[in-house]
Amino acid sequence: MGPAFKKIALMARGRKKGVEETLSAVAQYLTEAEYEVFIEAETAKIFKDIDLTPLQATELDNRCELLVVIGGDGSIIKAAHLAAPHKLPILGINRGRLGFLTDIHPYEFEQLERVLHGEYVREDRFMLKCELFDDGKLLYSDKVVNEIALSRGLVTHMVDFDVYINHQFMCHYRADGLITATPTGSTAYAMSGGGPILHPRLDAMVMVPMFPHTLTSRPIVIPADSCIEFIIDEKNESGPCISCDGQERVCIKPGGRMKIEKADTVLRLIHPKDYNYYETLRTKLHWESVGAR
Amino acid sequence: MGPAFKKIALMARGRKKGVEETLSAVAQYLTEAEYEVFIEAETAKIFKDIDLTPLQATELDNRCELLVVIGGDGSIIKAAHLAAPHKLPILGINRGRLGFLTDIHPYEFEQLERVLHGEYVREDRFMLKCELFDDGKLLYSDKVVNEIALSRGLVTHMVDFDVYINHQFMCHYRADGLITATPTGSTAYAMSGGGPILHPRLDAMVMVPMFPHTLTSRPIVIPADSCIEFIIDEKNESGPCISCDGQERVCIKPGGRMKIEKADTVLRLIHPKDYNYYETLRTKLHWESVGAR
Amino acid sequence: MGPAFKKIALMARGRKKGVEETLSAVAQYLTEAEYEVFIEAETAKIFKDIDLTPLQATELDNRCELLVVIGGDGSIIKAAHLAAPHKLPILGINRGRLGFLTDIHPYEFEQLERVLHGEYVREDRFMLKCELFDDGKLLYSDKVVNEIALSRGLVTHMVDFDVYINHQFMCHYRADGLITATPTGSTAYAMSGGGPILHPRLDAMVMVPMFPHTLTSRPIVIPADSCIEFIIDEKNESGPCISCDGQERVCIKPGGRMKIEKADTVLRLIHPKDYNYYETLRTKLHWESVGAR
Amino acid sequence: MGPAFKKIALMARGRKKGVEETLSAVAQYLTEAEYEVFIEAETAKIFKDIDLTPLQATELDNRCELLVVIGGDGSIIKAAHLAAPHKLPILGINRGRLGFLTDIHPYEFEQLERVLHGEYVREDRFMLKCELFDDGKLLYSDKVVNEIALSRGLVTHMVDFDVYINHQFMCHYRADGLITATPTGSTAYAMSGGGPILHPRLDAMVMVPMFPHTLTSRPIVIPADSCIEFIIDEKNESGPCISCDGQERVCIKPGGRMKIEKADTVLRLIHPKDYNYYETLRTKLHWESVGAR
Repeated sequence: MGPAFKKIALMARGRKKGVEETLSAVAQYLTEAEYEVFIEAETAKIFKDIDLTPLQATELDNRCELLVVIGGDGSIIKAAHLAAPHKLPILGINRGRLGFLTDIHPYEFEQLERVLHGEYVREDRFMLKCELFDDGKLLYSDKVVNEIALSRGLVTHMVDFDVYINHQFMCHYRADGLITATPTGSTAYAMSGGGPILHPRLDAMVMVPMFPHTLTSRPIVIPADSCIEFIIDEKNESGPCISCDGQERVCIKPGGRMKIEKADTVLRLIHPKDYNYYETLRTKLHWESVGAR
Repeated sequence: MGPAFKKIALMARGRKKGVEETLSAVAQYLTEAEYEVFIEAETAKIFKDIDLTPLQATELDNRCELLVVIGGDGSIIKAAHLAAPHKLPILGINRGRLGFLTDIHPYEFEQLERVLHGEYVREDRFMLKCELFDDGKLLYSDKVVNEIALSRGLVTHMVDFDVYINHQFMCHYRADGLITATPTGSTAYAMSGGGPILHPRLDAMVMVPMFPHTLTSRPIVIPADSCIEFIIDEKNESGPCISCDGQERVCIKPGGRMKIEKADTVLRLIHPKDYNYYETLRTKLHWESVGAR
Repeated sequence: MGPAFKKIALMARGRKKGVEETLSAVAQYLTEAEYEVFIEAETAKIFKDIDLTPLQATELDNRCELLVVIGGDGSIIKAAHLAAPHKLPILGINRGRLGFLTDIHPYEFEQLERVLHGEYVREDRFMLKCELFDDGKLLYSDKVVNEIALSRGLVTHMVDFDVYINHQFMCHYRADGLITATPTGSTAYAMSGGGPILHPRLDAMVMVPMFPHTLTSRPIVIPADSCIEFIIDEKNESGPCISCDGQERVCIKPGGRMKIEKADTVLRLIHPKDYNYYETLRTKLHWESVGAR
Repeated sequence: MGPAFKKIALMARGRKKGVEETLSAVAQYLTEAEYEVFIEAETAKIFKDIDLTPLQATELDNRCELLVVIGGDGSIIKAAHLAAPHKLPILGINRGRLGFLTDIHPYEFEQLERVLHGEYVREDRFMLKCELFDDGKLLYSDKVVNEIALSRGLVTHMVDFDVYINHQFMCHYRADGLITATPTGSTAYAMSGGGPILHPRLDAMVMVPMFPHTLTSRPIVIPADSCIEFIIDEKNESGPCISCDGQERVCIKPGGRMKIEKADTVLRLIHPKDYNYYETLRTKLHWESVGAR
């Protein structure tokens, strides 16, 4: 029986240690094994020595069946933005150290081979959509894999805003900001803020207030089909800013509105058959070794 | 049109301020309004002056359509254990102060009247089942509305135990214990331990480690259809104890096993039509008033 | 026996509810009681209807013995910046709601009278000095009553910096920032970030990391005679910003250095004789009323 | 110049991996180097093959100048109870892994040699004294290096108790318990409960409430010269228990009283000259490696 994935695009970002080497090795391995191998266009610009046919983001969907990403979790997040609209599956090869989203070891080609031949599990991670409105007019829209962070900009004052869930008033916040994270994002930025871990299979999102004025504020987990709206108080001196997956920053004026809902796209991950979420958790959070007592 | 609930049993526990007075007033009001009114048998023993036909727990299901509970959240928990097997709906009348589960004000009989005539929303809160095994033999079983707390007994040492989820090893804990809570229980004991709030509509449970040795341990939210197993290390000097909804304490021997799964019973709550979960949250957690800054 | 304080300057900031009214009432009361009453110059500009001799900041020290501040804790912080260089005592009159630093009720003139006649306790709260250096050159210097917050500016990336204590390397931080607070500041911004309460009598400061990358980071309390230095990594894309008592924001370049030490000034507070720190704590943190369970 | 310490007693507890081996090697090394070497009496009973003159606890003070403890931090705690009354210095040799209190590597005899010849720093860690009273009668008294934990016993209910500091009412607690820790204990049990790190040079203690009912409860750091009193509510069904340095458990009746004050004994630690508290902190808390993001 032939491989499950035959047409493969490679992608990498940044020039961190080991990325180019792994990219070359994977390119060579797959080419020799007679897969049809492409390189994502931006990747081709960064790593000019890799001799593969470049594919523009718009072509990925038609020309290949799998996007293999070399790097860390951050690279997968970037890949998701390209691949998600077409539900193109993503396989992450780490740089020698397990990531939450990259579980193939860079030099275990046998593991890679098995995955390509069908020994994999597919997992769809839902994404969130964030929309900013001013006077009812859509100003900005983005999708995220991890989280949307609303936070005060350069002003030193806390931000005042109201939150509505499914058009029902939830509460008023006075805080440095608030992180809304998916289960995938629950082990990223939201965790530094004291948020809980959400199992990836949960259809839920978590809202983690940042440095809230109200001492009884707590992270709250709500159903993923909720529509969250943030209304920025008119009385704020200047508006807060939004950061999507830690990538960009757009600011909202006092009086503006942000809406968060489940996106219609997903991050479709391909894991080796023996993938074990809890093992990743134990390893990444050093549960086996870190105790002071 | 006649009332939605015609046959009603009253229940109360404890002799806290205002309970007897409210119980009498409700009994009188319902009797005069020509409802068929009973009193739950244990309640009858505590409040001997209330002149109503007592019903044993086993009769509740056949003889009445609604269990009206006067008291706080703790009383609802106790009522759930009687009513849950039959999915008998429960309506909570608080003692003048809103509870998470008791949202009818004691002297607003109009509000009560409207609920009884059908202006209500019904909400099923799932429960958890806890089973203890020793050498594969079932030693103890219970159901909870809020949480199951595994904690060290009188010994000063931490408890060592392994947790498996759906037969997959999750991690080893060295801790004072661990709380497994439903969304209903997320605002009770689990919250004191730093757990997140889980929206009642979530089909999820949260595991909150108590004073864990591993400093990177975090509360984790998992799907409610998970089967959690705790294997108590043989090396513990003495076994930990289990407390179900804060009510009883059963101990497990080193080597013993505890299994937690979703129960087949639910707490069926009746709320007034204008019930608003977030309002309850804001009020109970004093979100409107408590800020140090 | 005559009053302990005879020459008094009044100060207020902002136009919040009740401030002007209280300012007028206190001015009238003290004038009628034949105290020598002044108004701080900036206050005179805001409240033009108060007919008192204005005093510039530089004159406060020579012309008066007590600075009476009407407002909340924020106003006391502002007053401290004027009064601290001269150790001029400060008495805070709140706007009807107890503050951590303002414990005289606005209309209890008897309480005020008793304090002015010597029934008071004096408490010196130490302050911190913050200095920013670039290439060894002092760029900026400020003093704080509450805290110095180092935090990322508009960039979405975390800040990388090293901390040295008494020239000994403490650790590397990768975080959204770090708050260094006095005991006075421990119940302000630092508390929202999970910092402990420090008793005002403690000669200690607390460092609270903000959203640290390292999950085992914890607030740390160190002796107040320590010299803390922050070295901002050259590799940061842009430098973090410093906010002193939440008032201004100055940015440091990558490679820059911030030094924090105890200041040579103090906030000298005058409390009524029956002042009780724990009572303030209980009231401000709502310890008597806020429990979910 | 001769050694700074010539008469040395060896002590170890437990039979953990490596202890006996290290004990033998150290005994042999010191004997050959012509130190006067003893073995603490209890240690002699556990490790019968070590051929040294045993010393009873009461003789340690007269016969030797230094107590060398082989083991982990727990062993130092045990040694402190023997050595503290006489301020006998303690030197900790770990079992190959740095402890907070044991910083000599087991096979680096040169390091040991240098310490014995005077290249050391001495550090006194203060201890706490705990006294239990019933009806004004002293029932129990103990001293601790780390912490005193008051916690509910086998009952499932929280404990209600009042805390007074220097005879001033601090607050009422409804909680699973409360840990009072020294700076030394701040990185032990208290840390698992969310307490801050206290620098060892601080003359302060920290009170960490366990699972408090009041959601705005926070760890609080107070001066070490404070006298803390706990009055157990008469209304508790049964009394809480006290655990001193995790070693024993004594229970207090409802109505009983516990007093905590600084003890008149200290743990006198001997560190190598290059001892660095922050390095120990970084290593023990894995600050260099543990980040999820």
